[in-house]
Amino acid sequence: MSIVAVGSIAFDSIVTPAGRAENILGGSCTYFALAASFFTKVRVVAVVGEDFTAEHEAVFRKRGIDLRGVERAQGKTFRWGGQYLDSLNEAKTDFTELNVFEEFRPKIPPEYKDSEFLFLGNIQPALQASVRLELNGVRLTGGDTMNFWIRGSRGELLKTLKLIDVLLINDGETKMLAEDPNLPRAAQKVLALGPRALVIKHGEYGATIFFREGAFGIGHHPFRAPALPIEEVTDPTGAGDSFAGGFMGYIASAGLLNREVLKRALFYGGVMGSFAVERFGTERLQCLTREEIDARFQVFRELTHLE
Amino acid sequence: MSIVAVGSIAFDSIVTPAGRAENILGGSCTYFALAASFFTKVRVVAVVGEDFTAEHEAVFRKRGIDLRGVERAQGKTFRWGGQYLDSLNEAKTDFTELNVFEEFRPKIPPEYKDSEFLFLGNIQPALQASVRLELNGVRLTGGDTMNFWIRGSRGELLKTLKLIDVLLINDGETKMLAEDPNLPRAAQKVLALGPRALVIKHGEYGATIFFREGAFGIGHHPFRAPALPIEEVTDPTGAGDSFAGGFMGYIASAGLLNREVLKRALFYGGVMGSFAVERFGTERLQCLTREEIDARFQVFRELTHLE
Repeated sequence: MSIVAVGSIAFDSIVTPAGRAENILGGSCTYFALAASFFTKVRVVAVVGEDFTAEHEAVFRKRGIDLRGVERAQGKTFRWGGQYLDSLNEAKTDFTELNVFEEFRPKIPPEYKDSEFLFLGNIQPALQASVRLELNGVRLTGGDTMNFWIRGSRGELLKTLKLIDVLLINDGETKMLAEDPNLPRAAQKVLALGPRALVIKHGEYGATIFFREGAFGIGHHPFRAPALPIEEVTDPTGAGDSFAGGFMGYIASAGLLNREVLKRALFYGGVMGSFAVERFGTERLQCLTREEIDARFQVFRELTHLE
Repeated sequence: MSIVAVGSIAFDSIVTPAGRAENILGGSCTYFALAASFFTKVRVVAVVGEDFTAEHEAVFRKRGIDLRGVERAQGKTFRWGGQYLDSLNEAKTDFTELNVFEEFRPKIPPEYKDSEFLFLGNIQPALQASVRLELNGVRLTGGDTMNFWIRGSRGELLKTLKLIDVLLINDGETKMLAEDPNLPRAAQKVLALGPRALVIKHGEYGATIFFREGAFGIGHHPFRAPALPIEEVTDPTGAGDSFAGGFMGYIASAGLLNREVLKRALFYGGVMGSFAVERFGTERLQCLTREEIDARFQVFRELTHLE
């Protein structure tokens, strides 16, 4: 089954303790699409500039990703520069050049309309809502957001949250959105805003999924998946988007939509995030195999399961 | 099988968002002993003052804890005051009155000498070493330490680490001890200092156990156990010591000493920590049952295990 992914395609300049990379392919939608492509058919909605070449396109094509929803606009592609010299957990932004992304209005190709799954990457909440309303046949919608929208576009975000089935955010975003410093309590408050499930990403500590009562079958106890204790993180960029790609991609591939599927999806999210950080940019995702993914899934299981 | 626990018995004055309590029974050894007593026979080595009454003693006696190693000294028992108004994850100390604890020199009763397990609570590293050397027949020694000793008594601590089989510390202590901000790498550096296993407590994110290669059987991959996402934490005091009590108590009860036992012990550690914070001081541990413990063990399992 296919999933539509809307978000950013970008060129990133990144400095980490392991080295630096200039103008490499990045963006939330890129990481998401590559990660999800190991599980299901991915259809991208994004915008790029004239500097997006056939070579960049080939990265997506090799993974069978549908680019009919990628608009080619006049000007330059979104560019971002950041560094992780102080902390691998949080990027310090050096520059943001929105370029063609500034005027991005997602356009859904008619061929995408039969898609059953949707992921709303981290863009303006009103745009997320418009995409969701246009794709009104989807079975499940995942979504991301960030501090910038929680603070600056709260009203629009609250409307969008009613259209999202599974929200994927981190600890800080959860507390900010709920206006509550206690994480489990904040999770319940976020669920009361609309989503049937909330995935909170804890970085190196893994992720927890909280369920709204009655959603996805019997039982609404949370579930926790680990992250891999990685000694050498090369580049943390895209870890969260790769997590979302593994999570949503697995769900789209599963057919069924129940609690057990969502639990396994949380594991696959962690697995894809753990690969993404091994090399700069999308390098590791580009050369990954499904066999490697399933082997690491077993490592995650052994990391947490009693005999 | 019995375990000797050395550490502090104290009277605590605590302020949390849930309320306050004055001069209640506390101390690392108290929490440890109560938590471990649900699994095994516990023998305490500590010091108290003249203000330690029959009523306080009864708290230990009711749980069958051996107090022959508790020295009654002239003066007042160790007192500590702290608050958790800014953060439930870290106490802000209001006062510390060492009192009789200042001159504490652990004395091991001859009746304790056949004990097979030992837990060295958070006291001066040279004192920890002297207890360990005196109890030279133990099969496994667990130990705790803190920033104060890592900074101030590093040389003595490094000697003590060679006598400890399983060290239980938190993220910050691990990074400080290893002088490395990367947690998995810091874990390996700490293992190189002596312990065969290292338990790192992540607070609300659970705990990870790292194994020295070849220790406790085949496989040295880490293992991660969760913490319960608790909405209402009444009093975080003693959570880490209760964790250690559940962890070491289960090991002492298991007979075998292998990787699987240590994994389950990590779960029981989390379980006992989760109970401890439900009420002020040791209140919850005092009225706990083994049935409640095993029921929560199942909750921890469901929180992390795929079908």
